[in-house]
Amino acid sequence: MIIDVHGHYTTAPKALEDWRNRQIAGIKDPSVRPKVSELKISDDELRESIVNNQLKKMKERGSDLTIFSPRASFMAHHIGDFEVSSAWAAICNELCARVSQLFPDHFIGAAMLPQSPGVDPKTCIPELEKCVKDYGFVGINLNPDPSGGHWTSPPLSDRQWYPIYEKMVELDIPAMIHVSTSCNACFHTTGAHYLNADTTAFMQCLTSDLFKDFPTLRFLIPHGGGAVPYHWGRFRGLAQELKKPLLKEHLLHNIFFDTCVYHQPGIDLLTKVIPVDNILFASEMIGAVRGIDPETGFPYDDTKRYIEASTILTAQDKHKVYEGNARRVFPRLDAALKAKRK
Amino acid sequence: MIIDVHGHYTTAPKALEDWRNRQIAGIKDPSVRPKVSELKISDDELRESIVNNQLKKMKERGSDLTIFSPRASFMAHHIGDFEVSSAWAAICNELCARVSQLFPDHFIGAAMLPQSPGVDPKTCIPELEKCVKDYGFVGINLNPDPSGGHWTSPPLSDRQWYPIYEKMVELDIPAMIHVSTSCNACFHTTGAHYLNADTTAFMQCLTSDLFKDFPTLRFLIPHGGGAVPYHWGRFRGLAQELKKPLLKEHLLHNIFFDTCVYHQPGIDLLTKVIPVDNILFASEMIGAVRGIDPETGFPYDDTKRYIEASTILTAQDKHKVYEGNARRVFPRLDAALKAKRK
Repeated sequence: MIIDVHGHYTTAPKALEDWRNRQIAGIKDPSVRPKVSELKISDDELRESIVNNQLKKMKERGSDLTIFSPRASFMAHHIGDFEVSSAWAAICNELCARVSQLFPDHFIGAAMLPQSPGVDPKTCIPELEKCVKDYGFVGINLNPDPSGGHWTSPPLSDRQWYPIYEKMVELDIPAMIHVSTSCNACFHTTGAHYLNADTTAFMQCLTSDLFKDFPTLRFLIPHGGGAVPYHWGRFRGLAQELKKPLLKEHLLHNIFFDTCVYHQPGIDLLTKVIPVDNILFASEMIGAVRGIDPETGFPYDDTKRYIEASTILTAQDKHKVYEGNARRVFPRLDAALKAKRK
Repeated sequence: MIIDVHGHYTTAPKALEDWRNRQIAGIKDPSVRPKVSELKISDDELRESIVNNQLKKMKERGSDLTIFSPRASFMAHHIGDFEVSSAWAAICNELCARVSQLFPDHFIGAAMLPQSPGVDPKTCIPELEKCVKDYGFVGINLNPDPSGGHWTSPPLSDRQWYPIYEKMVELDIPAMIHVSTSCNACFHTTGAHYLNADTTAFMQCLTSDLFKDFPTLRFLIPHGGGAVPYHWGRFRGLAQELKKPLLKEHLLHNIFFDTCVYHQPGIDLLTKVIPVDNILFASEMIGAVRGIDPETGFPYDDTKRYIEASTILTAQDKHKVYEGNARRVFPRLDAALKAKRK
């Protein structure tokens, strides 16, 4: 079985975006703020948006199941207040839940949280619990920078985040650390902000003792870990300067990287440097990079090709990357699959 | 000849730091603000700080000449106003000039600029010109984020930077794009902010047409280009989505990467992915990562070992990385060497 741990609902029917635009307009002018009930998307519309897009490509490329969360760039936690984020997160999560109900063999949910800059993260817990308990979601996406590129929240090691971590530990779910749209003109969203956030999150964990407080907490750092594997020697050396344990002991019981690296040499570096138990297959398809690589003739984000072509990974390693590690990092996914005798 | 294009004066006599601390105290209390003339460092002190540190390691490791600029983390452009930065930059640059006069075969200067948040970059031009014309410096370090991790300046493609670029083109000098200390708690200086800035700067260039306006402008992106080579497929794909030319045409006449990547797999990725003409040897020694890698028994930042061990680079390629490319990207360095018949 091939599990893609990083998929977003980037192809939702346009009614969703229209509703969001009305919601945003309603921040300034409450008279135009739409009700949640005004968003109407039929099951057929959902099916169509998936069958012709993600599911089509999954079948073409040969992956079976995607952990599916709301569109990352649309989370835009910097817009409006907690109430705005709360309504928006509920809508987006519900759509992912409906997709996973319509295609139970191919999609399972991960939640966006109703984060809002300056608002205590514990306010996110009711939405988180609903998604896990009612919708059967198996993970969450945690935004380390709800300000959207101004980085006004404290680091992930700060105690403000602990209520989220306590709930994650209780429910035995991991978090993918994933920012949203940058509203800082310095940072291109998918070309700089995403990768920077990955590197930043890793270093926030490295300099702290977060995982002493939460030995079973698990973070999935997407986009191949930002700059981290490429600079693995730098990070090993910095940990040494800071008198931290070896990274393998200090962080790799708790931090995992996905394979959203869109060329063979990048995947080869990742798999050479990072222990195979810490690598989870993912493509973030349909996402930031949708074109065909003229150097290969195949889509940049068809990351399965790079894993398949790897001469570094053994067949057993590939099984871990495709399935075994995902079952371990997302125990609720494993339980859901086992309940179906998968 | 082996030229290290990225060295900072991280070992300056303690009197420098003491003076700076008094200068910082003087921001709040002008009565304690020190005069420039109160900083006294003798040639012997300078010699000692170099002979026992950078020069010793250069001889041990086998590099000949270092392009030497003030300590990056100490630039701290976010502290004080333009006047504070101006006095500080002048002092730091002069020390590098004196080092290069004391050791003319081993050091040649690159300037820090007296940048200050919210201040027009063109105010930096007198210091820049002094360093190039009076001190014989061959390049500058340009900080894309003088706020120190708050990213309040416009992107490098913004016209506010153009006066600097016009002067760089006129004087035929490149800029290393190098941030300083982060005063944002989210970003560890050398573990996140430096690498993020490298990635961010590259993406700012990618999304713009800056090099159409300045076809001969040259940026050196340090620390192996941040996350860029590891995600080269992502960047090629993003350029394609944005209808930009192939990166080779769009950016690689103007953007170069150094080899400050502190493990063999990282250097191998860099040299596999980035054309050899765009890679310049550097170690940033003595810098952020000073320890011995227990996996190799050698210093992390002894990057020459990784180049030597490369099976990807030919002997001719290595010559380019060590010397040829530096002479091309830093024409004033080449001229200075030729004047000495080197």
